Amino acid sequence: MNAPERFFLPDIQATPDRRLVAIDRVGVKSIRHPVTLARLDGSTAPSVATFDMYVGLAHDQKGTHMSRFLELLQHHAQRPLDAGGIRALMDAMLQRLEARTGHIEARFPYFISKAAPVSKVQSLLDYDVTLQAQMNAQSRYRYTMKVVTAVTSLCPCSKEISAYGAHNQRSHITIEAELVPGASMGIEGLVAIAEAQASCEVYGLLKRPDEKYVTERAYDNPKFVEDLVRDIALALNQDIRIAAYTVESENFESIHNHSAYALIQRDKRIPE
Amino acid sequence: MNAPERFFLPDIQATPDRRLVAIDRVGVKSIRHPVTLARLDGSTAPSVATFDMYVGLAHDQKGTHMSRFLELLQHHAQRPLDAGGIRALMDAMLQRLEARTGHIEARFPYFISKAAPVSKVQSLLDYDVTLQAQMNAQSRYRYTMKVVTAVTSLCPCSKEISAYGAHNQRSHITIEAELVPGASMGIEGLVAIAEAQASCEVYGLLKRPDEKYVTERAYDNPKFVEDLVRDIALALNQDIRIAAYTVESENFESIHNHSAYALIQRDKRIPE
Amino acid sequence: MNAPERFFLPDIQATPDRRLVAIDRVGVKSIRHPVTLARLDGSTAPSVATFDMYVGLAHDQKGTHMSRFLELLQHHAQRPLDAGGIRALMDAMLQRLEARTGHIEARFPYFISKAAPVSKVQSLLDYDVTLQAQMNAQSRYRYTMKVVTAVTSLCPCSKEISAYGAHNQRSHITIEAELVPGASMGIEGLVAIAEAQASCEVYGLLKRPDEKYVTERAYDNPKFVEDLVRDIALALNQDIRIAAYTVESENFESIHNHSAYALIQRDKRIPE
Amino acid sequence: MNAPERFFLPDIQATPDRRLVAIDRVGVKSIRHPVTLARLDGSTAPSVATFDMYVGLAHDQKGTHMSRFLELLQHHAQRPLDAGGIRALMDAMLQRLEARTGHIEARFPYFISKAAPVSKVQSLLDYDVTLQAQMNAQSRYRYTMKVVTAVTSLCPCSKEISAYGAHNQRSHITIEAELVPGASMGIEGLVAIAEAQASCEVYGLLKRPDEKYVTERAYDNPKFVEDLVRDIALALNQDIRIAAYTVESENFESIHNHSAYALIQRDKRIPE
Repeated sequence: MNAPERFFLPDIQATPDRRLVAIDRVGVKSIRHPVTLARLDGSTAPSVATFDMYVGLAHDQKGTHMSRFLELLQHHAQRPLDAGGIRALMDAMLQRLEARTGHIEARFPYFISKAAPVSKVQSLLDYDVTLQAQMNAQSRYRYTMKVVTAVTSLCPCSKEISAYGAHNQRSHITIEAELVPGASMGIEGLVAIAEAQASCEVYGLLKRPDEKYVTERAYDNPKFVEDLVRDIALALNQDIRIAAYTVESENFESIHNHSAYALIQRDKRIPE
Repeated sequence: MNAPERFFLPDIQATPDRRLVAIDRVGVKSIRHPVTLARLDGSTAPSVATFDMYVGLAHDQKGTHMSRFLELLQHHAQRPLDAGGIRALMDAMLQRLEARTGHIEARFPYFISKAAPVSKVQSLLDYDVTLQAQMNAQSRYRYTMKVVTAVTSLCPCSKEISAYGAHNQRSHITIEAELVPGASMGIEGLVAIAEAQASCEVYGLLKRPDEKYVTERAYDNPKFVEDLVRDIALALNQDIRIAAYTVESENFESIHNHSAYALIQRDKRIPE
Repeated sequence: MNAPERFFLPDIQATPDRRLVAIDRVGVKSIRHPVTLARLDGSTAPSVATFDMYVGLAHDQKGTHMSRFLELLQHHAQRPLDAGGIRALMDAMLQRLEARTGHIEARFPYFISKAAPVSKVQSLLDYDVTLQAQMNAQSRYRYTMKVVTAVTSLCPCSKEISAYGAHNQRSHITIEAELVPGASMGIEGLVAIAEAQASCEVYGLLKRPDEKYVTERAYDNPKFVEDLVRDIALALNQDIRIAAYTVESENFESIHNHSAYALIQRDKRIPE
Repeated sequence: MNAPERFFLPDIQATPDRRLVAIDRVGVKSIRHPVTLARLDGSTAPSVATFDMYVGLAHDQKGTHMSRFLELLQHHAQRPLDAGGIRALMDAMLQRLEARTGHIEARFPYFISKAAPVSKVQSLLDYDVTLQAQMNAQSRYRYTMKVVTAVTSLCPCSKEISAYGAHNQRSHITIEAELVPGASMGIEGLVAIAEAQASCEVYGLLKRPDEKYVTERAYDNPKFVEDLVRDIALALNQDIRIAAYTVESENFESIHNHSAYALIQRDKRIPE
């Protein structure tokens, strides 16, 4: 469809480039598009994603064709946005843009229905998810899933030194994981690892008996920012589906106007 | 359902307050929740909204019940989020929270499929929408719809004084409108008014003949930020569905690192 | 210097406008500029502010002169940005732009040196401040100072119903105040009112004895979001320097992924 | 000063850790602090920076001491924040925290006074700067300076295919550079490289003859996002002070609601 117009309008991007500088990434950034997400149970859930889509450009090519990224996004938006969907989008992008390397990133909110710990009332909790795929010059494909989980952290030092009480706060635990080939893991899998190691999970809807439970649970389970990332790293180390990971915790300290922060990064394929 | 727990756990919020200071708004802020939007054509579209929900609290009441806002949001999330849906949520909120005044705000991205001007290829464009409802102490209900439309603006001064070319940029036109009772207008209605008065519309996907068209269209149709808000104000003045409005334009100037901005506000029910 | 160019380049903005629609605000938005702030003790402190500057435009005027706002900002940037500095900028803006109405807003971080409660070690804490000035069509000048103070809030319900502990979190208290004519009040004045009513103040630097103190202080002093705004409203009611105010509290709940929020607004000049 | 308190309050962070997981980064994040910046001409300029400060933690150490980061920041805030100032802060941090590896990041706005191209009127333009320092486990110190420069980009395709006009927009060019040991380069150096390769520079204050100049200059100098990063890469390749760099351009397209983007990354020390 694009071809006939070339007879009438010059296609500058298709001309050769004499500067001989290859471009690592070129494409479109921050496009919002509705998406369908695949749930673990086989159902689907709608969301809205923000996409970045880039390809590598050889040193002798003048430019890429920006409109093709949009066409690709439209054609693939019907398909669930999971590991398989991102891979199909990558393959189509490399073919359509005649490129060897590529980079795709999709950021979106994801919702999980959670039961309150005592009353068991259900409510949704939101998680920020980033799916990222890269094809490098050696044709190595790398797919990572990043999930931000809000949790409660309660300070062990504050608990230990105080006659009563302990400062606690909302924390953001971010796990970015690359799976081993053939392994399967949903967003819920990373969320479960983060929530299991927090001082306490957070919830959308809590009744009073639930509020009593989460208050006491956090107090019984104090964790420094260092403990959060270490305990999650231990869990990620033991999960054989995960080949490499980064775990971060940012604690929005209730006694300061800044955050406490920790990060552990590990590639299990590299001997320590 | 909430009642039995009161026998065991004290309900502090239900005790009287002696400070005798009424609270204008109290409730929950920045809750993300999936929503279903009603399209003009009768179809529905999913999106993700961020909600604020507040009620007024009388001077002798100690506190509100935060968990009830979440229950309300969950029960109403199935219903399309339009003028009727927001009104039903308001009525339920005032009843459940035993309040006379209330404030609801929902912010979400909305997508419209547009045809490119020449090639007619379809693509989605995203718009930021805010629905806001208020019930005041005189039982007056006020519902407004606010839509941010991205457009192209081209500077008439730059065109006039330059031998060739003219600076242009992306602009955000924000229209907030309150309808007359009984009138009906979709998000598409406000978008159409904004796009019709811009130097040119913007699109997700443009082929080369489209790019030629939008370039020349903007050059043929230069507008200052003052022109944008005035021309839209004239259109809003003539639309009998609209009782009151605010129109803003923020032009992200391509020759500066700041914006040019203009605003017109009018309530047609108040004689000028 | 600006005059001679008019002989050569047309000044489109100076031509009459036939649409006969007045513009409430037109000007420049989001300009960052270094500023000098006046401290209570007579010293000055540098910061970086983001400015919006607008004037009203009569129905028969085609446009404003954007470059003049920048000239004004530059000429006035040497002078301390306080009530007097903003007023001088407003007067100069109305004269230079030949306008009757105007709106100026400056947003900047402000730092106060605080002593930790026990160790007395000094550290800086940051506050977001917005100064806003408006001259309306009746030549009424209105100047407001808005300060966001981060504090600790501790939930009374959580404390009451739990065997031990209590959820607490960082909260943002926002006070916007209009002073009575002739009254004088620094940013420190609004900060002091907010901090005095919180469950506890927050600090940049705390040693262990300080951490013990703030933990116990917050536990001894639980406050709902409703209590925070009411107690601050009582303090603002009693301060004769303040003519009108809005107080908000947003509590970034440590047990949820959303905020609890409350707002009280009062103009003391209007009988209740 | 910190020592005596240890006799009375337990220091949990100083106890050994049995999980045997090293932490790559632990410390404080998003602390705002006033800073003094060194200008090329030997003068200084105040700004406000947001700091992240982290150290590595050995596998057998329980935790770091968060308050020490704040003490370090306070003690070093008097000194100009440049390559030497950041290095001194790193050395002090590693010593005070008894750590081998560390990471410091400071983000702040920087202002440069620019003369308009024709009228020569002076005005300030703001640039977002990030200084980053890392000491790794092999005691290799790496210091990078990142500067975001706003410029005008004008589309060659739009110009070529249109009878008149060409779409243009504000673009953000981001250069992150690591210098060769001993080399010296100010923020102005990276800004100059970015501005020289843009379709046109942007300015705070432009008079009409300047606006004519920048309009025509951009039209005479069209650049794709690919051209911007390639032309800047060529300049960075030739600058012997620069050992490694990343250059990005994000063009906030005036005809779309998304960005065009390109990135080139090169380490000159690695043979291609």
